Amino acid sequence: MAVKIGWIGLGEMGLGMAVNLQKYLASQSSHLTVWNRSPGKTDMIQKQGAHVASSIEDVVSRSNVIFTSLSNDAAVESVYSQLFALASQTQKPLIFVETSTIHPTQATKNAQLFDSCPQHRYLQCPVFGRPTAAHAAQLVWIASGNADAIETLKPYFGAMSKSIVDLKTTDVSRASSFKLIGNFFVVGMLELMAEGLSLAEKADVDQQAVLQLIETFFPTPAWIGYSRKMAENSTTKAGGFAVDLGLKDVGHMKQLAADHGAVLPTAEVAYKHLKVLQDQGKGDQDWSSLINVLRDATPPQ
Amino acid sequence: MAVKIGWIGLGEMGLGMAVNLQKYLASQSSHLTVWNRSPGKTDMIQKQGAHVASSIEDVVSRSNVIFTSLSNDAAVESVYSQLFALASQTQKPLIFVETSTIHPTQATKNAQLFDSCPQHRYLQCPVFGRPTAAHAAQLVWIASGNADAIETLKPYFGAMSKSIVDLKTTDVSRASSFKLIGNFFVVGMLELMAEGLSLAEKADVDQQAVLQLIETFFPTPAWIGYSRKMAENSTTKAGGFAVDLGLKDVGHMKQLAADHGAVLPTAEVAYKHLKVLQDQGKGDQDWSSLINVLRDATPPQ
Repeated sequence: MAVKIGWIGLGEMGLGMAVNLQKYLASQSSHLTVWNRSPGKTDMIQKQGAHVASSIEDVVSRSNVIFTSLSNDAAVESVYSQLFALASQTQKPLIFVETSTIHPTQATKNAQLFDSCPQHRYLQCPVFGRPTAAHAAQLVWIASGNADAIETLKPYFGAMSKSIVDLKTTDVSRASSFKLIGNFFVVGMLELMAEGLSLAEKADVDQQAVLQLIETFFPTPAWIGYSRKMAENSTTKAGGFAVDLGLKDVGHMKQLAADHGAVLPTAEVAYKHLKVLQDQGKGDQDWSSLINVLRDATPPQ
Repeated sequence: MAVKIGWIGLGEMGLGMAVNLQKYLASQSSHLTVWNRSPGKTDMIQKQGAHVASSIEDVVSRSNVIFTSLSNDAAVESVYSQLFALASQTQKPLIFVETSTIHPTQATKNAQLFDSCPQHRYLQCPVFGRPTAAHAAQLVWIASGNADAIETLKPYFGAMSKSIVDLKTTDVSRASSFKLIGNFFVVGMLELMAEGLSLAEKADVDQQAVLQLIETFFPTPAWIGYSRKMAENSTTKAGGFAVDLGLKDVGHMKQLAADHGAVLPTAEVAYKHLKVLQDQGKGDQDWSSLINVLRDATPPQ
């Protein structure tokens, strides 16, 4: 089949990914068809050659592969109920590639929507990386779902990411669980760093020496980048990952653990700290600002 | 002065360090004078040319620089009360280099012992690295105390380590606080890994994919080494770090936080899990075995 690609959702992650995909398609004399709930986000990618659809229906009629990048499970559920209503009326085979970080149960529900339409495919493909990595095509792409569909789309996934982890499973919930476990390592690392760096401040231990220690023992972009942000108090939003989104993810991790009879105490601790920030009206700050909660915390008497 | 070096304490860390120092001294036509509470440990280093002292008194009479590597604060307190009693009877200037992981208050107490003997110097120089790193001279050496004494000894420190972090402070408690904060990052990482990997097992997420994720995002020896140990269930003691020692360290971290009005919830969680292992009679296992506590844990009803 000639692959004609639609894209729904141009948030910070979606826009970065879609721009890279549009560049790749342009090199093949093709183009994306994009749609976003709030229309202002489409200008930049339109200049790069993407076609702006008038509606979700317009995306479906112009595409046979449709990527979605949405902010939370409710948005995913709403968009997929529309997509299913449209898809169930056409014999044209469609592949849906859902890239958002959602609870595994939602991924399964999406896939089951299409059980009655065996001509269609649903892939769950969450991505690892911050918006800066999305813009730089440096994401790690996680693929789950129908093997043939994944194989067909690998060149397109590759245009948006530095590597592809193919989980080789049709159980799309696994990719969502995997993404939550990966994000758990990241948020746990933030919590750890915030506790250690704020203790260093209070115990009058040289902050630069602690940063040097981190560079020596954990010389990875995440450790070095976040510890510098925290020590320098530059936990603004630019290129970052908001507390509100972090809370959504950590909530899903806690739920995943509960679903499987596991315990995840570090996620509980990080959730509590991120919630303090949200309650203070700081839900749009980068989630590394959780160090400020530790700075303000005092031990129970 | 001609530097004549004594070494007290030949545990897993001490032996590795002392052997490297002995090799260096041999290249200078010199040798270590060693002493260990249990005598069996001295055979190997004696074959490499070290002199085995008959007593702590013998070490002091033959040396003007004395390194100590001991298992806990009680051992440090006991050895230093003997060392001080001997040192206070000699005008020969002595430099003591204490390398153990102890509470900052104990480091300060040791240093204060020598206040009445200004001819002597006390340095607190904890080291980062596992016993394998000690044997390979790949430790990270942390130096605090008198600047001239540190400068004099840097070649000897260098013979045992890959890098030296000079905290440039005479407040020897800072080096101990710094070491505890560094160890906090390590134990927190273990806790995090154990929670995430055991959740992956329970949620039926492909373990190899999770290990691959860790290699992609946290490509450091500690993350990769410990996650493989945990996944492969090879948390034996060889070359490792025992639960008992981990509990001592984490207890100190908790105390350090309490001393300074800081909170360290991740240390509290890790402490609880390591304590379960100790209570099960597994205090001599490598501390990465804390994943087994998470595997067995069930959420509160």
